[in-house]
Amino acid sequence: MTLDWPYLTPGIPDSAFIRGKVPMTKAEVRCVTLSKLRLLPDHVVVDVGAGTGSIAVEAALLCPRGRVYAIERNGDALALIEQNRRRFGVELCILPGEAYEQLDAIGGFDRVIISGSGGRLRDILRVCGRRLSPGGRMVINAVTVETVYRALDVLKSDDYEELDVVSLNVARGRFVGGSTLMEGFNPVYVISATRGDGGAKGET
Amino acid sequence: MTLDWPYLTPGIPDSAFIRGKVPMTKAEVRCVTLSKLRLLPDHVVVDVGAGTGSIAVEAALLCPRGRVYAIERNGDALALIEQNRRRFGVELCILPGEAYEQLDAIGGFDRVIISGSGGRLRDILRVCGRRLSPGGRMVINAVTVETVYRALDVLKSDDYEELDVVSLNVARGRFVGGSTLMEGFNPVYVISATRGDGGAKGET
Amino acid sequence: MTLDWPYLTPGIPDSAFIRGKVPMTKAEVRCVTLSKLRLLPDHVVVDVGAGTGSIAVEAALLCPRGRVYAIERNGDALALIEQNRRRFGVELCILPGEAYEQLDAIGGFDRVIISGSGGRLRDILRVCGRRLSPGGRMVINAVTVETVYRALDVLKSDDYEELDVVSLNVARGRFVGGSTLMEGFNPVYVISATRGDGGAKGET
Amino acid sequence: MTLDWPYLTPGIPDSAFIRGKVPMTKAEVRCVTLSKLRLLPDHVVVDVGAGTGSIAVEAALLCPRGRVYAIERNGDALALIEQNRRRFGVELCILPGEAYEQLDAIGGFDRVIISGSGGRLRDILRVCGRRLSPGGRMVINAVTVETVYRALDVLKSDDYEELDVVSLNVARGRFVGGSTLMEGFNPVYVISATRGDGGAKGET
Repeated sequence: MTLDWPYLTPGIPDSAFIRGKVPMTKAEVRCVTLSKLRLLPDHVVVDVGAGTGSIAVEAALLCPRGRVYAIERNGDALALIEQNRRRFGVELCILPGEAYEQLDAIGGFDRVIISGSGGRLRDILRVCGRRLSPGGRMVINAVTVETVYRALDVLKSDDYEELDVVSLNVARGRFVGGSTLMEGFNPVYVISATRGDGGAKGET
Repeated sequence: MTLDWPYLTPGIPDSAFIRGKVPMTKAEVRCVTLSKLRLLPDHVVVDVGAGTGSIAVEAALLCPRGRVYAIERNGDALALIEQNRRRFGVELCILPGEAYEQLDAIGGFDRVIISGSGGRLRDILRVCGRRLSPGGRMVINAVTVETVYRALDVLKSDDYEELDVVSLNVARGRFVGGSTLMEGFNPVYVISATRGDGGAKGET
Repeated sequence: MTLDWPYLTPGIPDSAFIRGKVPMTKAEVRCVTLSKLRLLPDHVVVDVGAGTGSIAVEAALLCPRGRVYAIERNGDALALIEQNRRRFGVELCILPGEAYEQLDAIGGFDRVIISGSGGRLRDILRVCGRRLSPGGRMVINAVTVETVYRALDVLKSDDYEELDVVSLNVARGRFVGGSTLMEGFNPVYVISATRGDGGAKGET
Repeated sequence: MTLDWPYLTPGIPDSAFIRGKVPMTKAEVRCVTLSKLRLLPDHVVVDVGAGTGSIAVEAALLCPRGRVYAIERNGDALALIEQNRRRFGVELCILPGEAYEQLDAIGGFDRVIISGSGGRLRDILRVCGRRLSPGGRMVINAVTVETVYRALDVLKSDDYEELDVVSLNVARGRFVGGSTLMEGFNPVYVISATRGDGGAKGET
């Protein structure tokens, strides 16, 4: 059954998505991620390591005149992305396989989210360096120390502007017997930057 | 000078707002707050204790066919709200004075954010209980233990559904000499709920 | 087999304790808790809601000339406390049953940790008000919004000094395939205070 | 005036130390740091980048039969260390200058805390690799992404065991007009490991 989510603001509750054993970006982190992306209705957006597809689905809801690609190499996750795509009645271009290869094949894009890199972060960032539009935005969600470091290391030295990193420690209340137990999630680092225009005129 | 912020996604960078000595809701908390509000373009939205006006301005950008009220009793903050309203070229109905009195005067509204309660949280919640539309959404940003407790206490016992609370511990990286120093902000609790429809049909 | 832990500094690794399904205070929170207790070697210490006994065991290691009571009403937890007591070769006075009754029966004590209150926080605090020595220290570990609020509410109005509350959001790295994944624990509030001496001379 | 701190448990309140403009390790992080050090009364301990000396002073209180070195290159901090040493009436061997040079000059040590590395982390770790006793403990307090990464990178590949990393997001309550405002500190990563014994017999 299709779920109609009419709201303008991203951050659909986790429970609205079909979830399997694939880790899911929690609603609060998802909405910060989409915030850092700075979407316009006609954007071409790529989600690398799309997992359950929750970020890609929200991007597709926000960019009806654009196009959203979801790259994923895990079979279970691919099935979930398709299920969530149908659930929210959006169009998504689901690409199975290695991210850096698929990214290159897409051609150009305005926005890219790196939700998972499968150990190939530098390769992925290299392709983004060629394919992300001048003035385009990149957002990296990192859950390991190494990804945070490597992402910052590349983005600081390459042609990126407005480099930003926030760490999010989120806990959600669970109501048990009249009490509100706060349950912590894993911390996530959201790294974002604007692609420089290499001397040409950028987006704005 | 007016700043054109064309993006669909909330969470405008803090630096884009005019700030004084009034505490400001940081971009990440602001975008989670707006996410929990679940806005539609024609919503009537009230921000209680609007501070710098950053949340109200973002709501106004998202609800061009609705109306956004910003209630504030501090003179410095009122001036900042007006400056930020102009900066982003949005319409805001700025109401000086005590929140619970002004809220009552507005009549009905679809969404309410309580950013500050000035020690009158129960009075404010009582008025919201009468004035918030069935199916409407309330979001409370709390920075003190007592506000978190009291807000949950009222929302659990009154006619609210989908009660939710998250705590957000955000730190932002500052780049100093090749290193990325993470600087912590004060934790914020974002409490949200949907107004029950008292037996009638809600918003869907 | 007895495990010899010779170190002066509290915060024994979690893995050194026998754990069942009973929630355990993590090493980092445990050492902050013991820090706030400010122990002397001859102290009479009570751990209310002792769980696995990890805090009580550490207190017993630090107070060889004192006495440590572990109050617990859950049968599985009681068995674990005894196992952990033996493992570290310490003396513990394990008291099964309702905390506020057992606390009263102990008579006086110098230090009290409230790790769990089983919904009877106010009763427990009332007994502590009579039984905790002037200048004695109380530490409350709270994981729900309601316990934090109620503990502060009582301690602010009763005869306590040096009231302090910290929230601890701890994440621990797990090493997976060359990467360090940070895994978040539930946030814990550690509330502490010094019992006033009611006009008489205190501890120091 | 000397302050007598008689308690066994580390984590002396921040307010007990003389503080200048030098950043100070907060009590909660300090007690976790000392916990990870696993001190014995006769240990030789080195604090690299000792700052205000708060960690070194606590180590000296805990190790009366050992020796504690505080290495620091900042003049203001050196003066503070001496003031805090006197305040708590402990012996400290205060060494001005570059850490990696001073560390080498000390000879051997049982415990080392790297509170600050002044951009020379790898050099400092290299000296520790030669000078830290087999079975000895190293603790690194890191506040930048880069230090966390580099410390883990070296400790994973060198001869260390029991590698552990925790991130601590601490907030402390400030009581303002009947409310408890939680104020966040900067997150700190505490990295710890045990020096391998290179085939020989270790500490225990």
